[in-house]
Amino acid sequence: MGVRTILLQKSVFEDNDNQANILREKLKNKGVFLVNVMSSPGAGKTTTLINLINRLSKTYRIGVMEADIDSDVDAIKVAEKTNSKSVQLHTDGMCHLDAAMTEQGLDEIGIEDLDIVFLENVGNLVCPAEYDTGATMDMMILSVPEGDDKPLKYPLIFQKSSLVVINKIDALPYFNFDVEKCKKSILMRNKNATIIPISAKTSENMDELVKFFDNKVKEYTNK
Amino acid sequence: MGVRTILLQKSVFEDNDNQANILREKLKNKGVFLVNVMSSPGAGKTTTLINLINRLSKTYRIGVMEADIDSDVDAIKVAEKTNSKSVQLHTDGMCHLDAAMTEQGLDEIGIEDLDIVFLENVGNLVCPAEYDTGATMDMMILSVPEGDDKPLKYPLIFQKSSLVVINKIDALPYFNFDVEKCKKSILMRNKNATIIPISAKTSENMDELVKFFDNKVKEYTNK
Repeated sequence: MGVRTILLQKSVFEDNDNQANILREKLKNKGVFLVNVMSSPGAGKTTTLINLINRLSKTYRIGVMEADIDSDVDAIKVAEKTNSKSVQLHTDGMCHLDAAMTEQGLDEIGIEDLDIVFLENVGNLVCPAEYDTGATMDMMILSVPEGDDKPLKYPLIFQKSSLVVINKIDALPYFNFDVEKCKKSILMRNKNATIIPISAKTSENMDELVKFFDNKVKEYTNK
Repeated sequence: MGVRTILLQKSVFEDNDNQANILREKLKNKGVFLVNVMSSPGAGKTTTLINLINRLSKTYRIGVMEADIDSDVDAIKVAEKTNSKSVQLHTDGMCHLDAAMTEQGLDEIGIEDLDIVFLENVGNLVCPAEYDTGATMDMMILSVPEGDDKPLKYPLIFQKSSLVVINKIDALPYFNFDVEKCKKSILMRNKNATIIPISAKTSENMDELVKFFDNKVKEYTNK
């Protein structure tokens, strides 16, 4: 299956926050729920999205934007393994997406016939947290092998994410990762965060994640 | 054990490459071998360094600079578990170190009585690759749970690193990671890269890593 790739233009807008608010309002008016998905490289963003989309797509029409420095591997994987609309965004070396870049992706994918769009941001715990993409909500995926100390070392991304997914819990017996300690550290950064431990590989607890999005989207569209 | 923490000043130098070359020359004249260590968050930079330093410090005098957005956890861990000189560098939100920031750290730690200095860069596969720190050599650590596709997705950091350590090989039975395929992708980015698979946790193959540095440092100082 062919996948379109877009080379994003650098943003011309000085005021990204303002631009992000305008985009968020526009999405709200169209009833499109945009999720900004952030994580380290290799935390399982693509695997989690494929598993999640295959469940949500029974109810919702879904689009996916895969941002990467280079390569099309993620968009191709998503296109092959789900029946969502997917597009690859190339950031031309940049370490994050801003609101204007996100809007270029949305224009390309076309949102008129979509309910939910997932934006897979560049794998990075620093820069993506600093730029509001205009998304309806921000989520991050922390994986067990990365260690339970990450909320201490990368505060901003945990502050900003209203949902933190702890992925690869099937690997817990293999790593020294204290889930309760990690949850405490996450809540120290953002006391309102929802924390959902899952394994995208074995599908453990995926139902809870699906329920979370189902509730959020219904609330958003007042259905 | 107390650990000094420095809040780095933003670089005033326009020409980082020139600044980096000056620093590299200065280090060469003093016979100090500076290693810039890059990886994703949670790939095992600190654990690898602690294991490596404890072996190398039988022969060499070693210093460690731990760069982080926030927190002192790494510098404290290194100070407790090795007898190296260690210092924490706070980047004040920045996602990388440049040559001037590296020099601030070196001035603080004091290099007159050191043979090798390890700079643990911010956990990030994008930005650190874009700035020459002035180090004698660049290495990166890729961990098995991150996946074997990383050289495809983050080309620059693999191009730039003359040593790629594949860490957490004790977890290979648990993850779908093809070492030979990964080695091929790394060599596609940099055909001269040395690739050493290890487990910093079980110490598997640490001897090869020690030997690599021993040879490099001897060659550098003509001993």
